[in-house]
Amino acid sequence: MLISKLVGERTKTAPSDAVIKSHSLMIRAGYIKLVSNGIWSLAMPAKRIAKKIENIIREEMDALEGQECTFPVVMPRELWEESGRYTSIGDEMVRFKDRFGRDMVLGMTHEEAAVQFARDAVNSYQQLPFMIYQIQTKFRDEGRPRGGLIRVREFTMKDAYSFHMTKEDLETYYERAYHAYERIFKRIGMKNFIAVKSDSGMMGGSISHEFMLLTPIGEDTIVICPKCGLSANMEVATSILNDAEKEEALPMEEVFTGAAKEIREVTEYLGDIPAEKTIKAVCYNIRGDSERTVVAFIRGDLEVNEAKLKKVIKADIVPANLNSDELVAGNIGPVGLSGKNIVIVYDNSVKGTVNMVSGANKAEYHLKNVTEGRDFSVSESYDIRKVKAGEKCPVCGGELTVQNGIEIGNIFQLGTKYTTAMGMTVLNAEGKAVNPIMGCYGIGIGRAMASVAEETADEKGLNWPMAIAPWHVYLCVIRPDDEKVKEKAYALYDEMQKRGIEVLMDDRAASAGFKFADCDLMGIPLRLVVSPRAIENDAAEIKIRATGETITCPYEECIDRIKEMIDAAI
Amino acid sequence: MLISKLVGERTKTAPSDAVIKSHSLMIRAGYIKLVSNGIWSLAMPAKRIAKKIENIIREEMDALEGQECTFPVVMPRELWEESGRYTSIGDEMVRFKDRFGRDMVLGMTHEEAAVQFARDAVNSYQQLPFMIYQIQTKFRDEGRPRGGLIRVREFTMKDAYSFHMTKEDLETYYERAYHAYERIFKRIGMKNFIAVKSDSGMMGGSISHEFMLLTPIGEDTIVICPKCGLSANMEVATSILNDAEKEEALPMEEVFTGAAKEIREVTEYLGDIPAEKTIKAVCYNIRGDSERTVVAFIRGDLEVNEAKLKKVIKADIVPANLNSDELVAGNIGPVGLSGKNIVIVYDNSVKGTVNMVSGANKAEYHLKNVTEGRDFSVSESYDIRKVKAGEKCPVCGGELTVQNGIEIGNIFQLGTKYTTAMGMTVLNAEGKAVNPIMGCYGIGIGRAMASVAEETADEKGLNWPMAIAPWHVYLCVIRPDDEKVKEKAYALYDEMQKRGIEVLMDDRAASAGFKFADCDLMGIPLRLVVSPRAIENDAAEIKIRATGETITCPYEECIDRIKEMIDAAI
Repeated sequence: MLISKLVGERTKTAPSDAVIKSHSLMIRAGYIKLVSNGIWSLAMPAKRIAKKIENIIREEMDALEGQECTFPVVMPRELWEESGRYTSIGDEMVRFKDRFGRDMVLGMTHEEAAVQFARDAVNSYQQLPFMIYQIQTKFRDEGRPRGGLIRVREFTMKDAYSFHMTKEDLETYYERAYHAYERIFKRIGMKNFIAVKSDSGMMGGSISHEFMLLTPIGEDTIVICPKCGLSANMEVATSILNDAEKEEALPMEEVFTGAAKEIREVTEYLGDIPAEKTIKAVCYNIRGDSERTVVAFIRGDLEVNEAKLKKVIKADIVPANLNSDELVAGNIGPVGLSGKNIVIVYDNSVKGTVNMVSGANKAEYHLKNVTEGRDFSVSESYDIRKVKAGEKCPVCGGELTVQNGIEIGNIFQLGTKYTTAMGMTVLNAEGKAVNPIMGCYGIGIGRAMASVAEETADEKGLNWPMAIAPWHVYLCVIRPDDEKVKEKAYALYDEMQKRGIEVLMDDRAASAGFKFADCDLMGIPLRLVVSPRAIENDAAEIKIRATGETITCPYEECIDRIKEMIDAAI
Repeated sequence: MLISKLVGERTKTAPSDAVIKSHSLMIRAGYIKLVSNGIWSLAMPAKRIAKKIENIIREEMDALEGQECTFPVVMPRELWEESGRYTSIGDEMVRFKDRFGRDMVLGMTHEEAAVQFARDAVNSYQQLPFMIYQIQTKFRDEGRPRGGLIRVREFTMKDAYSFHMTKEDLETYYERAYHAYERIFKRIGMKNFIAVKSDSGMMGGSISHEFMLLTPIGEDTIVICPKCGLSANMEVATSILNDAEKEEALPMEEVFTGAAKEIREVTEYLGDIPAEKTIKAVCYNIRGDSERTVVAFIRGDLEVNEAKLKKVIKADIVPANLNSDELVAGNIGPVGLSGKNIVIVYDNSVKGTVNMVSGANKAEYHLKNVTEGRDFSVSESYDIRKVKAGEKCPVCGGELTVQNGIEIGNIFQLGTKYTTAMGMTVLNAEGKAVNPIMGCYGIGIGRAMASVAEETADEKGLNWPMAIAPWHVYLCVIRPDDEKVKEKAYALYDEMQKRGIEVLMDDRAASAGFKFADCDLMGIPLRLVVSPRAIENDAAEIKIRATGETITCPYEECIDRIKEMIDAAI
């Protein structure tokens, strides 16, 4: 490819909303172009990377006996009603009416389509296990698209669905898929990634893992034990709290606290008592039910983990609109609190507490020395709290750390949720109709690309690993107007292509510095220079983008050297 | 691949609405699965064919210096308003509101996205010409999806857009694209196809060609001159009518015709006068304007070509709702007809006619001996008629034939319609901002696949050309329970795969006849049998699906023979 014809301008500046490296650099290097909020066009270099990532994924899926299919982007409402997700999924799913007035949706995931596809085609246990997958466009109407290709609304995804007769068979296959995912991320050049146990959310099922690239710009929060290696998404992570010191229960008393409502305000007002000696009330409404209020009581120094709370109450929640007569906003406490529209959930941290400060359920007042078991009683409590760095690992007792990550892939043991709901059965060896057990396995192509960019880029620009680089070599022609240079450059260009080396030739009339900067910005792994002086000295200069190292050799050796470097890196 | 695990059952019957071969057989062979009206899932074999077709197209596009990109499926209204197509395209375009309440569309073509992508990235004439293309999902809300993958609502398409400084450069490139298209269809195994001049319809622009597979099931009608080779889509085809015999004009008279309204009824009523001695009125409303009626007058034996009529009146038309006071349905004629809401268009066939029968613009009456120039006057006339078989070729005078075809690809010289509307300019050599001249080039992947199926299938089933076959070889294992058979079969299976031969192994416990039928139905080009007797006789039997020919050779030679056959065919 000649850079003079490549559509996609390199620029010095990126839009001001491009706050992360991959976003900013992929725009500046001419890889992506915004079409609408969270919707991008991919220019040729980005498309070449995407295809390489897709092919690596395809190889690994085929090695898992995957059958590549295509399911549609547009699906009828009826299909999603079969699984119950037409109503359970909110605004992220695009719904529209077709010309015949029928309700349609845009696919954001394809469990329904996979089951609809397989259920008539498979009848017998002898056909199981099998896995079907696709690499296809999806649309998820994200509320907050951001970060270039990191969080988008339209994206290409590899999604795979496996079907099994037994839980054991699913678990064995899941393990294989887990390792295939590790290989995929390694092969595309990712380094600092881990697999963490996760909340399977709207996908249903029980066991699931998210593959996470650890990076400060990640939106996911991961709890990691450096001692035993345990890792979990914050949504499901647990920890052991340090034991509170034993103390004698003092008599409860009501104290005036005026306008103090937040824990920080109350502890300051009462003379800097520690937050861990308070009980905080966090209120939510159940989505679609503005009457009832969920009041979560938790120790004042801790935060409610909404994902855990949702599981406890088995419903989706939204921040409360506190217009209930039964609650005094800012002064809510567990003592004497009740009401027909109040659902109380206690975090484990509240159980057994002594001499706490809490709201008095009365405007401008709190209670001191509140003691559980005496002043109020926790019959059932749950883990609904967010783990904090420094708490103890539930497995080994090590000190937990909290890191940020980008979710780059996920795998789920779905169970029979979809096959049951959608009536897919096969005959088992005894001739009895049973629902197959499913697993599903996803990777977003664009996010994988951006994540690699994020991890590898430096101050000069992008820095693609050889395996997914859009081109292997940037052939930098200095003084293309010089006949000798031109002849040499085209000879190298043709010869490299003949040998399967992918070359981007900079044939423009521009300075060496300008071209070197573009090469660095675009992140092509190897740079080969052809210039009058280099030809005169027969000194081919090969610069390695990743290390900054430069190798000089006679021109007749340079293609062999380059070929070796490519083969070694892929 | 083992057929025992392949998802997609072969069946003896197809749904009753599957009236064409490719539709019926692709369902029966387990290639495709209906999800919703005009929306399909592709099973592994169909996906493998699609990928091979895509790769052939990709090679040919890359040879045209094409840059593969990806434009989005979902686009914002604003983009389509820039070109004016947000309003000019009707129900075929899906429109919906996203979660932010913004109007979005599903892409049915990507001129807007291509121009939006290129206009900021390209500034100078030195960057032109260039071509960008994608292979991506599109959604067109067809009113009448039919024929399996022939006419669908969701489809994968290769769409390419070229940009040029001069009309001559576009024409040169267009010629190259034309030949690339010929190569593509040949390479995917199509035989009886032609390129015809077409109406460029909603795409705008002037010169365009459709590539058509000639087949009786085609929905397009093509006029072909067997003598000089001229071909054109019925929408734009022209012909020379045989001269009418000269005759003396007789006095015009009004005759009672009662309930006779259709030309056939009127000619019968009046005693079998020939239809070519009548003038027919065909009425339309302009879309979105129910007031005005377009009355097209044409000789009674001819049909109005609505595509041509639309061009004459420069508006879209719908069949008329004849509630006008100014028109007497069934008795409309050119003599004395006028009205403020009537737009009269004469076909050339009406000009100079003598002694015709036409409506009298009065209920239950017609006129006889109507003569143009005396009783009414045609100041301007147009070619708005459909060509009929037997009329004369406008180029060589040969006798025209009319055939049916499926449109398998199209190429357009778009001109500056989109670059002007969307404000894309580049600086020319004189430093002046000019609008680049565009071409665009489309091929539907699924339709290409179904068209090949339609052309090659026979009474036994599908019959894929080697270049796009899902697998090269169907390895038919007779008595897989026999240890020697099993060993031989797996040895051949492994060895063939090692040598790059794609094999589908039928490892099921079933009869030879059952397996042979499945092999024929699926249309795999070569069938290799392993059976106890064949092993005993060391007689490997290779059957060629396309010709029915069988070759027998020792097993140790069979892979070489197969490899030769594959290499020769691709």
